[in-house]
Amino acid sequence: MSDNVYKKTEIVGSSKTSIEDAIEGAIARASKTLKNLDWFEVIDTRGHIEDGKIAHYQVTLKVGFRLE
Amino acid sequence: MSDNVYKKTEIVGSSKTSIEDAIEGAIARASKTLKNLDWFEVIDTRGHIEDGKIAHYQVTLKVGFRLE
Amino acid sequence: MSDNVYKKTEIVGSSKTSIEDAIEGAIARASKTLKNLDWFEVIDTRGHIEDGKIAHYQVTLKVGFRLE
Amino acid sequence: MSDNVYKKTEIVGSSKTSIEDAIEGAIARASKTLKNLDWFEVIDTRGHIEDGKIAHYQVTLKVGFRLE
Amino acid sequence: MSDNVYKKTEIVGSSKTSIEDAIEGAIARASKTLKNLDWFEVIDTRGHIEDGKIAHYQVTLKVGFRLE
Amino acid sequence: MSDNVYKKTEIVGSSKTSIEDAIEGAIARASKTLKNLDWFEVIDTRGHIEDGKIAHYQVTLKVGFRLE
Amino acid sequence: MSDNVYKKTEIVGSSKTSIEDAIEGAIARASKTLKNLDWFEVIDTRGHIEDGKIAHYQVTLKVGFRLE
Amino acid sequence: MSDNVYKKTEIVGSSKTSIEDAIEGAIARASKTLKNLDWFEVIDTRGHIEDGKIAHYQVTLKVGFRLE
Amino acid sequence: MSDNVYKKTEIVGSSKTSIEDAIEGAIARASKTLKNLDWFEVIDTRGHIEDGKIAHYQVTLKVGFRLE
Amino acid sequence: MSDNVYKKTEIVGSSKTSIEDAIEGAIARASKTLKNLDWFEVIDTRGHIEDGKIAHYQVTLKVGFRLE
Amino acid sequence: MSDNVYKKTEIVGSSKTSIEDAIEGAIARASKTLKNLDWFEVIDTRGHIEDGKIAHYQVTLKVGFRLE
Amino acid sequence: MSDNVYKKTEIVGSSKTSIEDAIEGAIARASKTLKNLDWFEVIDTRGHIEDGKIAHYQVTLKVGFRLE
Repeated sequence: MSDNVYKKTEIVGSSKTSIEDAIEGAIARASKTLKNLDWFEVIDTRGHIEDGKIAHYQVTLKVGFRLE
Repeated sequence: MSDNVYKKTEIVGSSKTSIEDAIEGAIARASKTLKNLDWFEVIDTRGHIEDGKIAHYQVTLKVGFRLE
Repeated sequence: MSDNVYKKTEIVGSSKTSIEDAIEGAIARASKTLKNLDWFEVIDTRGHIEDGKIAHYQVTLKVGFRLE
Repeated sequence: MSDNVYKKTEIVGSSKTSIEDAIEGAIARASKTLKNLDWFEVIDTRGHIEDGKIAHYQVTLKVGFRLE
Repeated sequence: MSDNVYKKTEIVGSSKTSIEDAIEGAIARASKTLKNLDWFEVIDTRGHIEDGKIAHYQVTLKVGFRLE
Repeated sequence: MSDNVYKKTEIVGSSKTSIEDAIEGAIARASKTLKNLDWFEVIDTRGHIEDGKIAHYQVTLKVGFRLE
Repeated sequence: MSDNVYKKTEIVGSSKTSIEDAIEGAIARASKTLKNLDWFEVIDTRGHIEDGKIAHYQVTLKVGFRLE
Repeated sequence: MSDNVYKKTEIVGSSKTSIEDAIEGAIARASKTLKNLDWFEVIDTRGHIEDGKIAHYQVTLKVGFRLE
Repeated sequence: MSDNVYKKTEIVGSSKTSIEDAIEGAIARASKTLKNLDWFEVIDTRGHIEDGKIAHYQVTLKVGFRLE
Repeated sequence: MSDNVYKKTEIVGSSKTSIEDAIEGAIARASKTLKNLDWFEVIDTRGHIEDGKIAHYQVTLKVGFRLE
Repeated sequence: MSDNVYKKTEIVGSSKTSIEDAIEGAIARASKTLKNLDWFEVIDTRGHIEDGKIAHYQVTLKVGFRLE
Repeated sequence: MSDNVYKKTEIVGSSKTSIEDAIEGAIARASKTLKNLDWFEVIDTRGHIEDGKIAHYQVTLKVGFRLE
């Protein structure tokens, strides 16, 4: 694996239901345009509130992928 | 939206079941006394252990609300 | 000055024109309900973009005031 | 204890004699207006100097209390 | 409770399904060799991606336990 | 707004006159190649000095934009 | 001293009286089972409150010791 | 430029009017006694409040200069 | 140089031999697709271990380049 | 007070007895060569251990003083 | 790989010659008593100076290993 | 060693060849004007790129020295 070079990009997923769902949605979207996605790191978890309830979660990730 | 002023307050929710449930409980409690709750930011996630199992999650949030 | 106790509260000001204007607006609003405001600390500077231009700045402050 | 919600507030105590005395003074003052104080966290320790000597310590705390 | 001494150790749990499941697995494993586990703190949440989907979550915790 | 995915990219603007002007220049440049710019976050403010005066400000931003 | 290897472990001491007393108690306990203790670093200072007074201080330390 | 050595010193400028003015004042003062000032980094922005208005901004900078 | 806009991207280089070699490899790879590379910042240094020895270093960098 | 410029310098005091004593010693030493000392900020608290006991505390401070 | 649990421990290596040599020495020492060492993270790099020259580097690492 | 007071100053070394060489150069330069240099801490590692290659490393250090 050595001598590989990776790139990291920062994305934000959102979901009405859970933190995991927001992460999955962000990774699914990233995989449409990026190949060789390898790992993710959660940077920040926040969300919006409407009428005293969670409207959606917003999770900021860094995703790493191998450059070919 | 410009020229609005918001206030942020720090609360800690707890739940036996999940991180999301702790967040929801904290926001539900905050909405009893604060109007115009707009967003939340997760600051810290921790919890207590009893008999080698998670007794409850404790999630520290900042919640932002618009001042009228 | 010793033996005084201060409280810090976190507020967010917004302005279409400048960072300083957002700070001033937040402090002016805080001074309506809090007495003895003494200092502020800038925590975060961000803002929204519309049509490729800054719609408004949002500056998060902590403001400290003396408890009587 | 689970399902409780706590609030955290940031206060600054000062004392001519010691860090512990500044913490105690801040908590004593907070307990006049807040019920159910449960824990504190030291955020920052600083102070003022006069004539080459410590005039007073200033200790910033977060104090947590249970909401009823 | 005063005058107790605690030790904190850092562990990483992994799970295919959720962040909570990774935390629970790490604590269950730690409880096999450590007595008096008392609390945990989430330090970092990350994971691996395979074929554009989350292969597993990896959650780094500090767990605290009382020394006898 | 939920279920949207955003991307964040890091840019550095510079200006001889002010921090706000450096931010505006960076966002104007980013808007030439990126659609749906939505928000910015100031990460770092620095600059160069020539002959004891500020030659220019350099402001590092993260800008967020919605992926379509 | 070069070419030595050290290990650091994280402990939490508590005391009803002072921050220094909590540090001393934690180090005294650690020295029962660890040899060659060489230095400590204060990571966090907090504590519990009962009846509006400090019940005890809790100080988190890293202690370093030389491996033989 | 390589093999040069630089020194960084930390200064605090203040101004009644703006953040930029506080930075400029600090650099102008530093340039009276230091040669080869090359860059600055903003570390902290705060200020004092009097009668509910900003009395002055205080901006902490690191300034770097080449050693001869 | 003023009024230029720069972009920063995050990459990870790896090497069996040294930290510097990992940095050089990452920059060499980045220069294949990015023009006007101007500076780098080391964000994180880590690596993998096999059979009790370093298998390779992994160094995370931010690289800055001027936008034309 | 506005339009003053301050300088901050970093010093480390040590004491066999307490954190406060280490701070006082450092400030007393600094006041021998620096005029107009105005405030201090505690940056780090650590110390050395000998024979399982605290040999001395080491407290790192920033001290601020007004430039004339 | 999922459902594994890892432990991280913090060690400090030292070397007269280089940062890499200090890392290698720390890992070689750790591998004497720990099985399944998997990765390391550099936390801090420092060292001692004697007669105006580097006496030795000291590099603090976290090393992760799989629990069986 | 107790009751000594140390000062820390921040310097930046540069080198075309390696991180260690940049550290050594900075310390050699500092030792020309400062006595009793005792330790260093690496704060930041960065550098410049020319023609897709590292032009030089820039390493920011804090160096500590005993005041007499």
